[in-house]
Amino acid sequence: MDVIIRNGTVVTAAESYIADVGIKDGKIAAVGAGLEDPGARIVEAKGLLVLPGAIDAHTHLAMPFGGTVSADDYRSGTTAALCGGVTTVIDYAIQRKGAGIIETVEKRRALAEEQACADFAFHCAVTDLNGGAVLEEFRKAVEYGVTSLKCFMVYKKEGMMVDDGTLAKVLLKAKETGMLVNIHAENPDLIDLRVAQFLAEGKTSPWHHYLSRPEFVEAEADIRAIHLAKNLGTPLYIVHLANEEGAAAVTKARDEGYDIIAETCPQYLQFTSDVYKREDGRNFVCSPPIKGEESRNALWDALRRGDISVVATDHCPFQSFEKDWGKDDFTKIPNGCGGIEQMYPYMLSAAGEGKITYEKAVEVCAANPARLFGCTGKGSIAVGKDADIVLYDPALDYTVTAAASNSNCDHTIWEGTTLTGYPVQTWLRGNLVYDRGEFLGKPGDGRFIRRALRK
Amino acid sequence: MDVIIRNGTVVTAAESYIADVGIKDGKIAAVGAGLEDPGARIVEAKGLLVLPGAIDAHTHLAMPFGGTVSADDYRSGTTAALCGGVTTVIDYAIQRKGAGIIETVEKRRALAEEQACADFAFHCAVTDLNGGAVLEEFRKAVEYGVTSLKCFMVYKKEGMMVDDGTLAKVLLKAKETGMLVNIHAENPDLIDLRVAQFLAEGKTSPWHHYLSRPEFVEAEADIRAIHLAKNLGTPLYIVHLANEEGAAAVTKARDEGYDIIAETCPQYLQFTSDVYKREDGRNFVCSPPIKGEESRNALWDALRRGDISVVATDHCPFQSFEKDWGKDDFTKIPNGCGGIEQMYPYMLSAAGEGKITYEKAVEVCAANPARLFGCTGKGSIAVGKDADIVLYDPALDYTVTAAASNSNCDHTIWEGTTLTGYPVQTWLRGNLVYDRGEFLGKPGDGRFIRRALRK
Amino acid sequence: MDVIIRNGTVVTAAESYIADVGIKDGKIAAVGAGLEDPGARIVEAKGLLVLPGAIDAHTHLAMPFGGTVSADDYRSGTTAALCGGVTTVIDYAIQRKGAGIIETVEKRRALAEEQACADFAFHCAVTDLNGGAVLEEFRKAVEYGVTSLKCFMVYKKEGMMVDDGTLAKVLLKAKETGMLVNIHAENPDLIDLRVAQFLAEGKTSPWHHYLSRPEFVEAEADIRAIHLAKNLGTPLYIVHLANEEGAAAVTKARDEGYDIIAETCPQYLQFTSDVYKREDGRNFVCSPPIKGEESRNALWDALRRGDISVVATDHCPFQSFEKDWGKDDFTKIPNGCGGIEQMYPYMLSAAGEGKITYEKAVEVCAANPARLFGCTGKGSIAVGKDADIVLYDPALDYTVTAAASNSNCDHTIWEGTTLTGYPVQTWLRGNLVYDRGEFLGKPGDGRFIRRALRK
Amino acid sequence: MDVIIRNGTVVTAAESYIADVGIKDGKIAAVGAGLEDPGARIVEAKGLLVLPGAIDAHTHLAMPFGGTVSADDYRSGTTAALCGGVTTVIDYAIQRKGAGIIETVEKRRALAEEQACADFAFHCAVTDLNGGAVLEEFRKAVEYGVTSLKCFMVYKKEGMMVDDGTLAKVLLKAKETGMLVNIHAENPDLIDLRVAQFLAEGKTSPWHHYLSRPEFVEAEADIRAIHLAKNLGTPLYIVHLANEEGAAAVTKARDEGYDIIAETCPQYLQFTSDVYKREDGRNFVCSPPIKGEESRNALWDALRRGDISVVATDHCPFQSFEKDWGKDDFTKIPNGCGGIEQMYPYMLSAAGEGKITYEKAVEVCAANPARLFGCTGKGSIAVGKDADIVLYDPALDYTVTAAASNSNCDHTIWEGTTLTGYPVQTWLRGNLVYDRGEFLGKPGDGRFIRRALRK
Repeated sequence: MDVIIRNGTVVTAAESYIADVGIKDGKIAAVGAGLEDPGARIVEAKGLLVLPGAIDAHTHLAMPFGGTVSADDYRSGTTAALCGGVTTVIDYAIQRKGAGIIETVEKRRALAEEQACADFAFHCAVTDLNGGAVLEEFRKAVEYGVTSLKCFMVYKKEGMMVDDGTLAKVLLKAKETGMLVNIHAENPDLIDLRVAQFLAEGKTSPWHHYLSRPEFVEAEADIRAIHLAKNLGTPLYIVHLANEEGAAAVTKARDEGYDIIAETCPQYLQFTSDVYKREDGRNFVCSPPIKGEESRNALWDALRRGDISVVATDHCPFQSFEKDWGKDDFTKIPNGCGGIEQMYPYMLSAAGEGKITYEKAVEVCAANPARLFGCTGKGSIAVGKDADIVLYDPALDYTVTAAASNSNCDHTIWEGTTLTGYPVQTWLRGNLVYDRGEFLGKPGDGRFIRRALRK
Repeated sequence: MDVIIRNGTVVTAAESYIADVGIKDGKIAAVGAGLEDPGARIVEAKGLLVLPGAIDAHTHLAMPFGGTVSADDYRSGTTAALCGGVTTVIDYAIQRKGAGIIETVEKRRALAEEQACADFAFHCAVTDLNGGAVLEEFRKAVEYGVTSLKCFMVYKKEGMMVDDGTLAKVLLKAKETGMLVNIHAENPDLIDLRVAQFLAEGKTSPWHHYLSRPEFVEAEADIRAIHLAKNLGTPLYIVHLANEEGAAAVTKARDEGYDIIAETCPQYLQFTSDVYKREDGRNFVCSPPIKGEESRNALWDALRRGDISVVATDHCPFQSFEKDWGKDDFTKIPNGCGGIEQMYPYMLSAAGEGKITYEKAVEVCAANPARLFGCTGKGSIAVGKDADIVLYDPALDYTVTAAASNSNCDHTIWEGTTLTGYPVQTWLRGNLVYDRGEFLGKPGDGRFIRRALRK
Repeated sequence: MDVIIRNGTVVTAAESYIADVGIKDGKIAAVGAGLEDPGARIVEAKGLLVLPGAIDAHTHLAMPFGGTVSADDYRSGTTAALCGGVTTVIDYAIQRKGAGIIETVEKRRALAEEQACADFAFHCAVTDLNGGAVLEEFRKAVEYGVTSLKCFMVYKKEGMMVDDGTLAKVLLKAKETGMLVNIHAENPDLIDLRVAQFLAEGKTSPWHHYLSRPEFVEAEADIRAIHLAKNLGTPLYIVHLANEEGAAAVTKARDEGYDIIAETCPQYLQFTSDVYKREDGRNFVCSPPIKGEESRNALWDALRRGDISVVATDHCPFQSFEKDWGKDDFTKIPNGCGGIEQMYPYMLSAAGEGKITYEKAVEVCAANPARLFGCTGKGSIAVGKDADIVLYDPALDYTVTAAASNSNCDHTIWEGTTLTGYPVQTWLRGNLVYDRGEFLGKPGDGRFIRRALRK
Repeated sequence: MDVIIRNGTVVTAAESYIADVGIKDGKIAAVGAGLEDPGARIVEAKGLLVLPGAIDAHTHLAMPFGGTVSADDYRSGTTAALCGGVTTVIDYAIQRKGAGIIETVEKRRALAEEQACADFAFHCAVTDLNGGAVLEEFRKAVEYGVTSLKCFMVYKKEGMMVDDGTLAKVLLKAKETGMLVNIHAENPDLIDLRVAQFLAEGKTSPWHHYLSRPEFVEAEADIRAIHLAKNLGTPLYIVHLANEEGAAAVTKARDEGYDIIAETCPQYLQFTSDVYKREDGRNFVCSPPIKGEESRNALWDALRRGDISVVATDHCPFQSFEKDWGKDDFTKIPNGCGGIEQMYPYMLSAAGEGKITYEKAVEVCAANPARLFGCTGKGSIAVGKDADIVLYDPALDYTVTAAASNSNCDHTIWEGTTLTGYPVQTWLRGNLVYDRGEFLGKPGDGRFIRRALRK
């Protein structure tokens, strides 16, 4: 064996136990008591948790938006990822009108292969069926390793929205080919109505960004999408679920036996819409906006009972000066919020505080995204998996600052958040890429992951 | 007194009892035991029910649609109405793009004042806000006596649909002015998807009209509209509710205390989508289409427990030769179904058979439409109301035929339906206008009803 | 005609309108505009409401309990009733072990015929099936005019409780014979558990009476009883419903189409458990106890949407000195609360304040109890009904005091309650028995009402 | 290492992967690729599943009942268990009135230590609080390793029922001490009512056993127990859940965040009440009886979505001649059904057929009972756990017969059931005790498991 991590507490989605973990050729070769190999590098992990690297199933790196590009490219984004225990990102490649799926993905892949320090894969966000040609491409996309798509139910004026009929077509063809359709659920007409009214009334602050997209505007689209999926007999994956009524709709559908899956983000679990009242509120403008306390609590409840299956970041920060473009008009603020480095530590800290178990943190940040999005070699400390491993010290106190973080962005919503516990090492396919504050990886280390259909 | 109807069983929405009913100057002047007036015309009603004339709150008379005009104009339509115990119709005046509400109504009113044999009023169907001018007209419309509007959530390609934002604006302004907004709830994108697929596959029969607008396509719009109304804090009136899931959504909202009101039509209570498999199925093509047996039963249940408040006809028949235009393409069939003459007898027959009570039939066909739509002088056998009275023989067997009916239309979905009980006389404001098969009214008898805001 | 009440606003369960009401031979002979009869006594009612006398469907007059007898006998109780607009009481005759139903009722009837100033009828509370003999008596009881029974799910130690098996037998036989079974729903084991604990801990105040029978203890029995009735296919009438979860269970069952009926009492609508913290809290100890604000609101909601069908009093007051027996032990307080004189004024005042409509007040206090319990000659201002009429001044301010009330009891929970509107006259079968503060009736005026099966 | 199981597919509650499993000193010492140890016994498991031994959390071995004793004692019962892949049983020690918990358990433990071939633990079924002394013993019982109790809501006449107040006391004290309370939920009064009626009518067949305890009779008690647990704020574990409405109540409570746990049994998943119509129907008489097809399907659904957490057997068979005692009176049939040898194979076969996953089978038969009942050294293939291992051939066809089974009982409900897949070896703490049809264990091999409080 190349490496033996000794005496740590291995955590899977199902259980925890003390064991040694042996790595060979970049993969987990053994989990055992008293593993020995004279040639192996020994890493002492007594008192540490030995966790699978997280999979951030929702990122927007180097994403063009609102006349600029999101603050983290594949290099800085994946650097931050690895420093926070995320070893794989699934990024959104957004289809330009007229382009094909694989064409869309390959363009982003080329960029990522140069820059990425962590492993990466892509969902394709479909905005245009090209008269049906895109539907015909689904099967090839699956073969290519792109087994999930996204549809926007919002961004009508921006030309990214698909109407209900198009969404139905995508869902049906996705079902036929085994693809999983991710949706961004908000109702654009109801948003536009409020936006027009607020701007007319001179209400231009970030708080009005929230008020223009309140709870029920997101819930309406959640409910509509679930209704479609149920009646078309297709699976559905709702990204960044952020409201209570939507969470209730997910639970109801799952209780009825429907294959409805939900993702939320750390910012919706930790913060409330009160952040938009802060002086720096513009920095946290994202869509859907962070909601009220009832929603925050409902998301935790849904997570605990298994109705939210995935926590991912929707990482898409913009620099403060860009956020300032909307100083006098919240609609001009580039939408997005960061967190790729904080996600796993935050969820693990929640486990340390007893809100969830460590097993649940591993389940929603690693095991479930691996299973749902077909990253078959990832997501667990189990023999044969890639040795994407995080050593985590549950007793290490850590306070987040933008200054000490590895994102390019000049601010973070997590500024000042104190976490109980923090990663001390990250291993990517058997290589130590992060060690107690020091980043040891480099661009090009990351590999493109051809994803399988979900199990 | 001018007329005394003796010894009948008076039925109101609350109770039944034997009494005489005295009429003076076109109004109900007294209800009593042994009323006497030497100068009065005496009508013996022993064994008969003495009912308020019905109000058909949903008609489309002389309505231009699909390159033709609905088969009944105000003359034939109201003749049929009176022969079936309907003494007032509330017709839909559909706004031409750019026109105002009162302008729209006055055009139809002029037509009706010439032709109508029964009393009449109008809802205005809003298709265009004219940059907000239409919203500004709501208050004037109320003063004019038009206290309800309609929005279509469907007919997107036909240019009649309002989007969710527009619907929200209408609901909010309606609430402010006391207006009641009626909606036709179906999801156009989901319909278009199916229609395109069926036509492409050569599936062109009336049965595919139903399959292109199945239960959940209507339910989706019901649920969406209710969601909007709940969250905007406005009342909502759903016309021609025809599906089980929508009915459940209405019940849930009402249980939660929301002001959501539903109407259904006799054709949805009596028939199922099986009619579209009949050779003459094209004749019954209407939107929403008649649904399956579960929906039929659910509508009866909702009616019985008070969650459906109104039964109205959506009377809009077309001649068989016009229906035939869609022989090879169900989308070319002019949509609509008749029933203005059968509604009240059908609901009363259901009471005779024990499905509901006579009081319930009176409630949903007369008292509730009067109350909800502000026909303050109508809808009950009570002192001071217009003497719009139906004498009904609960023991009279009657079999419906198009031949014997008074609609201009050459067919009826009710052909061959046997009813237990039938009206024997209809009185309009104290005048006998229908007597045992003979129509005694004439065009111009009908008066325009300025409606009040609902109580 | 003997009497003509002129120009009042007649209110039925369905509607209101201005009319004259003519009385002849103790019955309502005519409702009309401008009724005239030179021989008739003319009562001017302009500005007043003309209401049916209320039926208090739940009283315990002269009821032996806890070593004493409830404070109002049939004389004082019905005097208070008439002064508050209640013209009929349905009292509970409680079966002594071994006795028959008719035997039980006749004993109480004899007492009432002597004393009662208002009309009266009886439910029989069954505590013992006498080996099945009591079941066999149901049919005779119906013929005798006793068409409803009560079962206690509580009072286990007191020997009045029936177990679930007995309740099931009663429900099944009642269904067979058309009887309506009323239940008092609380769970005795859960109460006893708490009582024992509180007394052991020296917690002996009236507040602990409430804590020993909290919301869920009542809800459990509501849910259990509804579950039985649903699964046995029988109707069920829940008396004095006082908690939110029980109300929700009633609504759910009714939505599903089950014949579950609920009654509540004015004290549950107006007060909360906070009354038990008052110095005179012992006076309001009743079972079920008055619950928290959520329950109070839920009861109003259920009433408004029609899921509570009846408001009745459970009138059963005890004198303060008797209430004091429980000064040091809340279990020794005779249970019961008065309100027979305040019920109708309170519900009408609520209508005046816009919480409900006058029609709804008439429905739940008069029309529904008449219909459900077969008082066919009562409950409405309609031709042929008994002329049990209340003239009510909606503008009359009134503040309740025990001193000015007609109950024998030396206190009232309604002390100091200000009502908007108050009865000015009560007529019993055409006789004026209450006139602006003066009682004009006398013992023996009241007649036993043989009740029919419910419609 | 002592033993290396090579090349099998390890299955945990979370995942499956190919690996070798090394055993040392009776425990799992390593899971790895290519484990080597010259001194180890090598077991080739290519193509086999390597599963944790199941824990049957519900058995009644050597249980006195109805004048006899259940057919399997600790020897035959645990022999059958091991041959079917169950390596631990949690048996019910039923308190004799007046006895203490530890006294009750020790008596059974003595018996088991002599006879048992598999590991064993005990729940104590509490029938009598001994004036509170039993409650005071909870803490000591936990220290002793008995961390769960059972209460019967049924068997009133048999003197085993606890009333709602007693159940409440047990729940509250259990919560305080960390114990988990198991309940048998059926309503005895409703059963007795039916039994009396059926026997009076001469309806004495096993089918009437079912009809005397139909779906709603079980559901009522489920709902009542859940209601108590919710309102007392205590956990609850429902044993042998067998009906749809109860399953729905569990789901609802869990959705609301309550700690309500459910167990079902293989016989409820596989069979319906139709078995009681068979000639040998008496053999399958158990309580609760097996229900209709709707319930069967609902149980599978609840299992799949995680609302049923445990599958256990309620193994309690009686010989045919004993079952015959009730030939003319179903109440005389000793209640109980066997299945200890078939449970795990049946659930794994269901996984093979795609009804559930193998991971789910492991979760409900091993991981969850271990976690919930504190068998900390059991329930998973993980380093440090007892080497209780089942090698399972998913391709082995197997048809169950009583003749070939290892239970003492002369019949089995599973007779003729064909399973896809079957265990080929069972290892108990590193010892091979079952090998391809041959039992290699012996009485006294089994050890008493001191259980911890649940995690």
